[in-house]
Amino acid sequence: MDSAALLNLLGNENRRRILRLLSRKPCYVTEISEYLGVSPKAVIEHLRKLEEAGLVESRTDDQRRKYFHIARNVRLEVNLSPYGFASKSAYPEGTNVDITSCRHLSLDVGREDDDALSGLLGQLERLERLENELSLAQRWVQGQLCEVLDEISESVGSNGDSRVYADLLASIRREPKSVSAISADLDAPREVVAELLEAMADRGIVRRTERGWELTQQSTVA
Amino acid sequence: MDSAALLNLLGNENRRRILRLLSRKPCYVTEISEYLGVSPKAVIEHLRKLEEAGLVESRTDDQRRKYFHIARNVRLEVNLSPYGFASKSAYPEGTNVDITSCRHLSLDVGREDDDALSGLLGQLERLERLENELSLAQRWVQGQLCEVLDEISESVGSNGDSRVYADLLASIRREPKSVSAISADLDAPREVVAELLEAMADRGIVRRTERGWELTQQSTVA
Repeated sequence: MDSAALLNLLGNENRRRILRLLSRKPCYVTEISEYLGVSPKAVIEHLRKLEEAGLVESRTDDQRRKYFHIARNVRLEVNLSPYGFASKSAYPEGTNVDITSCRHLSLDVGREDDDALSGLLGQLERLERLENELSLAQRWVQGQLCEVLDEISESVGSNGDSRVYADLLASIRREPKSVSAISADLDAPREVVAELLEAMADRGIVRRTERGWELTQQSTVA
Repeated sequence: MDSAALLNLLGNENRRRILRLLSRKPCYVTEISEYLGVSPKAVIEHLRKLEEAGLVESRTDDQRRKYFHIARNVRLEVNLSPYGFASKSAYPEGTNVDITSCRHLSLDVGREDDDALSGLLGQLERLERLENELSLAQRWVQGQLCEVLDEISESVGSNGDSRVYADLLASIRREPKSVSAISADLDAPREVVAELLEAMADRGIVRRTERGWELTQQSTVA
């Protein structure tokens, strides 16, 4: 599901309370209604939305009563900074994610060869600690990104629009490119890209050659 | 700010559009209103909420017109699974976060000694790649956590309530504890803890000794 739909769903406090309750144990509508102090009708409407989005599923017990549970893992990340607003959601799947291809990151959870309950509990503890460390690292990266973007912004002399400038310059860092190619990279109209390039050419940051637009020598030497 | 307040704010599509616009460039109310096709009155109301929450700030230009910009970095993470619903928000601060203390995680962004624009753009690229790798790693960890919790749940024979059982068992994994100490660890009422312990004692998973509640030998040998 896309992150906008997920944010719309999670923007409602009672839906969050329903999800929190169901993540502790599967429940009937009447249980949810009593626990939250919300009418069954309202609970059913929230559950319908959550079910449609695939966050919640229902089963029927022996007495043919319907009870609800969390359908699957969902993860949402939102980053807001003066340089961008990004949200992404994903379904974590333990077996499908390949973390061995990471170039800047290595993990060591130190799996024990102990399948007894005690070994599983140790593994749980280490995974929870790793989870916190990853959150910490992501905050660190966000801070670093802003610092680098501040420096780029200062170096280029762009106020406000600096993220667009940074993305544009990053696009031609390795090789000269045509306006069309840059426009595709940035998912921005050709006219906008052409105008930004002109502005930066005036400041001596980029230049147009036969091979396309590239960084000037001045930009590549400190 | 707490993550519930942040989710309430981000649950509105027009507020998200305003944040996205301001993260590209600072804007006046009229600009926002025209760009989004939303009345200035509604825009002002959204901005007021965003300003109160500290996400947005305003300045006054030479013509004494007020314009708005993103105030600071904010990061939000939400995890939903059959084992829990957790959301946390934080303000990433590049200089305050210490990632060298991580035990399960190491990062290598490979900083260049190149302060020229080109070096900064390279650094930007590597940080963006690291950011993606960290997201991938977090999805992996979420998947692993669910697998371990599934195994614990199977091993303990708890249906539904298994997260509570796992947390309780993890609390006494290293050393025997009293009901009060476990109750404090789990932030759960003593009666609930006592009842869970009884249920697990019946299944031979924990036992009560003079030193407190502990895992039985059976749980520590595969």
